[in-house]
Amino acid sequence: MARQERAAQTRRTIVAAAAAVFDELGYEATTIAEILKRSGVTKGALYFHFTSKEQLAQEVLTSQLRAVPPVEEQRLVLQQIIDETLLLAQLLSKGDPLVRGSVRLTVEPGAPRDGLDRRAPMQEWIGHGRDLLRRAEAGGELLPRLDVDAVARMLVGGFTGAQILSNILTGHADLLERVTDMHRHLMTSVAVPAVLVRLDFSAERSITVYDEAMRRREAPLPAAGD
Amino acid sequence: MARQERAAQTRRTIVAAAAAVFDELGYEATTIAEILKRSGVTKGALYFHFTSKEQLAQEVLTSQLRAVPPVEEQRLVLQQIIDETLLLAQLLSKGDPLVRGSVRLTVEPGAPRDGLDRRAPMQEWIGHGRDLLRRAEAGGELLPRLDVDAVARMLVGGFTGAQILSNILTGHADLLERVTDMHRHLMTSVAVPAVLVRLDFSAERSITVYDEAMRRREAPLPAAGD
Repeated sequence: MARQERAAQTRRTIVAAAAAVFDELGYEATTIAEILKRSGVTKGALYFHFTSKEQLAQEVLTSQLRAVPPVEEQRLVLQQIIDETLLLAQLLSKGDPLVRGSVRLTVEPGAPRDGLDRRAPMQEWIGHGRDLLRRAEAGGELLPRLDVDAVARMLVGGFTGAQILSNILTGHADLLERVTDMHRHLMTSVAVPAVLVRLDFSAERSITVYDEAMRRREAPLPAAGD
Repeated sequence: MARQERAAQTRRTIVAAAAAVFDELGYEATTIAEILKRSGVTKGALYFHFTSKEQLAQEVLTSQLRAVPPVEEQRLVLQQIIDETLLLAQLLSKGDPLVRGSVRLTVEPGAPRDGLDRRAPMQEWIGHGRDLLRRAEAGGELLPRLDVDAVARMLVGGFTGAQILSNILTGHADLLERVTDMHRHLMTSVAVPAVLVRLDFSAERSITVYDEAMRRREAPLPAAGD
């Protein structure tokens, strides 16, 4: 058990180091040598867990949703969606390596046939958003006759575009502002008015949501994939 | 004059070939050798116009707005914004090399210190959008108390995210649908109701707008930068 736990810890260390290097250099320019240097583990340990850069990148990509700790359940499901958005923005701008590396791998177009499946994280986010939106719909939070699947895609696309634009123009300095601006506008055509006016997109809320999520993350979690 | 025109034509050929290679391979993996092969011009001719891959990429980046032919003026300025969006989506999905290469260079995060200024095209789009939105505001098309600059950023960010998501999930097969979905939703919090109901986001309109723009492009234009 102790040995299993050490192995899982080593694996997490490698994945976090790989994500940090992918974030800095992109997939193409990243080398296993650089990941080894950054992680501080031995070559033997790395190759025990991963056989290639591609496999490492795929692990970082599929960790994306898991890398974002859950937010507290809210009475308004749309508020929960916003809280997750605020949390993701905070994790990106504070430089969480797994989130940043994974998001970069997802959106960088990559070389043809580099073998990475970038659809997985996007499909997971869309599926997750669709589930929450269906709950919001059942609770009467949504305007009538919305295509819930299209709205989920739009929210994921809106976040993606806002973060990329913010990264290009300000190196993510105005990320929170761009993301909340986007979602505030999008929500006006999604939420019924009585819900819309109660949604909180504020910077203060983003700090509270982030602090709570970090407290929860510090509690020991079962290791993913163990 | 004839020689000048030939030189300008060679320059355009090189830039279009470079854009096509950047679109396929990304900045990092592109080589001058591949651009030479694709353009069919001599090494001497290429180096007469450009001294490096970086300079070529920067030229492709700064050609982005110019690469999109103007749409016809519309009585509703917001319709003109939508028409430009529809046209850009059509150019991207039909594989216009300059537009595709330039858009890819803009959104791919790139290596640190690769020296490319990716802000230029985004700032141009935002500035262009802001000008149109101010005209729309003056004409009474906008809801009161909108931050026109923030709306311009949101429209550019929304387009960017929709096209990236569409590229990841469907290789741009559903681009038009994703982009119009995004802008239709965003416009509900931008346009006054009497304008909103008159805006046309349809696939039919996108084809008309594209065909008209192509007819206009075929008319001889003064070469950019001559």
